Amino acid sequence: MVANLLRRADVPCVVLERGTREYIETRPRAGMLEDRSVRMLEQHGLADRLLTQSDTHSACEFRVNGEAHELNYSDLSEGKLHYVYPQQEVVKDLVAQYLASGGDIRFEVTDVELHDVLDDKPSVSWTAKDGNRHRLDCSFIAGCDGFHGVTRKSIPEGAVEEFTHQHGIGWLSILAEAPPSTEKVIYALHDDGFAGHMLRSPTVSRFYLQVPVGENVDNWPDEKVWAELKKRLALRDSDWSLTTGPIIEKRVLDMRSHVVEPMRYGRLYLLGDAAHIITPMGGKGMNLALNDAEVFADAIVSYYDHKSTTGLDDYSAICLRRVWRAQEFSQWMVDLIHRNEQPFMSRLGHARLQHLIESPAAAAAFAQDYVGASYSGTGLYEATATRE
Amino acid sequence: MVANLLRRADVPCVVLERGTREYIETRPRAGMLEDRSVRMLEQHGLADRLLTQSDTHSACEFRVNGEAHELNYSDLSEGKLHYVYPQQEVVKDLVAQYLASGGDIRFEVTDVELHDVLDDKPSVSWTAKDGNRHRLDCSFIAGCDGFHGVTRKSIPEGAVEEFTHQHGIGWLSILAEAPPSTEKVIYALHDDGFAGHMLRSPTVSRFYLQVPVGENVDNWPDEKVWAELKKRLALRDSDWSLTTGPIIEKRVLDMRSHVVEPMRYGRLYLLGDAAHIITPMGGKGMNLALNDAEVFADAIVSYYDHKSTTGLDDYSAICLRRVWRAQEFSQWMVDLIHRNEQPFMSRLGHARLQHLIESPAAAAAFAQDYVGASYSGTGLYEATATRE
Repeated sequence: MVANLLRRADVPCVVLERGTREYIETRPRAGMLEDRSVRMLEQHGLADRLLTQSDTHSACEFRVNGEAHELNYSDLSEGKLHYVYPQQEVVKDLVAQYLASGGDIRFEVTDVELHDVLDDKPSVSWTAKDGNRHRLDCSFIAGCDGFHGVTRKSIPEGAVEEFTHQHGIGWLSILAEAPPSTEKVIYALHDDGFAGHMLRSPTVSRFYLQVPVGENVDNWPDEKVWAELKKRLALRDSDWSLTTGPIIEKRVLDMRSHVVEPMRYGRLYLLGDAAHIITPMGGKGMNLALNDAEVFADAIVSYYDHKSTTGLDDYSAICLRRVWRAQEFSQWMVDLIHRNEQPFMSRLGHARLQHLIESPAAAAAFAQDYVGASYSGTGLYEATATRE
Repeated sequence: MVANLLRRADVPCVVLERGTREYIETRPRAGMLEDRSVRMLEQHGLADRLLTQSDTHSACEFRVNGEAHELNYSDLSEGKLHYVYPQQEVVKDLVAQYLASGGDIRFEVTDVELHDVLDDKPSVSWTAKDGNRHRLDCSFIAGCDGFHGVTRKSIPEGAVEEFTHQHGIGWLSILAEAPPSTEKVIYALHDDGFAGHMLRSPTVSRFYLQVPVGENVDNWPDEKVWAELKKRLALRDSDWSLTTGPIIEKRVLDMRSHVVEPMRYGRLYLLGDAAHIITPMGGKGMNLALNDAEVFADAIVSYYDHKSTTGLDDYSAICLRRVWRAQEFSQWMVDLIHRNEQPFMSRLGHARLQHLIESPAAAAAFAQDYVGASYSGTGLYEATATRE
């Protein structure tokens, strides 16, 4: 995304990618784009296939005690929609556009190292696919290499502040070659824990099951997965049923959050998962990363076009405002829909869900967070960031 | 409250009170009545003095980073107001009305015991002020004797479920003979912790300071209290100042919550703090107790007038729906405005407060909870309760 935006503004850049093109274009991850993210992609001419092939969603469903409660978030947010379009398809579109415009990507690089990041002229070195070592002098480095990437790890300890939270909740994440059994995302709260039914495509669906932290995936043979999903997603007095299919991915995620402040170290700027990870709850991760990319590319373009460093100076504070808003919402939603080992906290989650279903004011506040319509304005965070 | 409602319906009752009349009529506690509580008192002719002497409030103020942000909750909740009227004044009015109508109240009783609570004819025994032992056969017992009272403790272990939560936060609670320095309740979030300025009367104010759990009140001489309040409540670029005065009460509260389910054991019904305690955050405790009293008295009157046990059977589920809603809101507000020892969670609180200040949808949801306008409708809780 960053590279596409820079190329469109004639700022030269090189993308270093550890994987093969095929790997990054087929790796299933997130699948829900906020209205705002789609508008941004569209504005830069990157949404042609997305707008043709994605499904749009305007409502989600909460299931609890065997009853379904629909929440139409679009009606409560001036018509904003969610676009269901798998993350690997977004990647595919971005790679195609970038290469078509003459962009430079090096696939299958290894042993990336950063040098002189605090100087005006940092550089990056790596081993190419053919085994040769290369080095590139840069003006800026965009660390877009995820939570386990090398860029954040190359920042000296203590040079940035890191905020970490373990939510104490595990998810068994399942991708199945099964057509969706619903037209809306389903969040189910069952006495045995959360179950989720997410949408990906007409032939593939994603499911989640709350499991203990650190659960071994071997404890979950396919038939047990389907039995548990059927139980937790069940509707009372209904002929609704769950369509099953071959499970093509099964892994355990521990719900955790991590934020780096500031999202910058010298000439290195961190973006997306390299700067912050968030629980999948609420579908914010990919959308935050796209926002970082836009803010960063704008700042770089402004630096070259107008010799202004304001955008680069403000990059971290602007992104972090949205990041913390999303973290707060995601945490709120985690507490809403999970079984909590502390009975008091489980009751609070139940009360929160009851209120969301009953109160139009609570539903409206939820809707705006859920579609990502409420992340604007200057506020307290900026005041703090400026002061520090 | 219960006794007044029962007398008005000609249901005979006796009130047993551990304290002297003077003690209960002067003991300072809560001070904020929801609009709904006032309407209820008014409907039963118990609000004459309250309506003349109370102050009404329509807005509160959040202070953070030295800036003030006003939130007009009345505008966001169809004009609902808060009434500032000290709890001991409510007690004074209730005692006066009850005695004027010929009500029977025994002050300074000790060693209260409950008998045969599971039978149709339970009884209560106690030692009167004169040292004599008395016993009263009853049809029902209303346990309105607070968290440390004897009624809940007389329920056998395991016969009801108890939900407890320690919030890990202490408050130094101060009552001072100082006129208020504000026209609105102030909630301040400072790097050193929460500070609150509550209103009680033209000459007396209540203040709160977040302190470590289990803090010793001796660590807080008066001059330190005022210095800390001035620091945490300070406004940037403003000539606002805090008016001080003699401190007449100083104690440390540990933020904790407790809920009993069901709020009934045989012929014993638990009301108010005997059934549930809540943090002072949001001012819900007294209002929940008044609601319990109304629901219980209605059920008793309906039992005698129409031989219907429906009200008594539903008493617990109806009250608990409001109780859990209030607990969820109070917890949400605790997280909003306190320094948290976990830096990640403190950042989330900050993000929540920023959002509350910036987002009209979030402010509207807050307002309805804060004034107590959002506690109606049947919902999930009832479904659960019925099923169990």
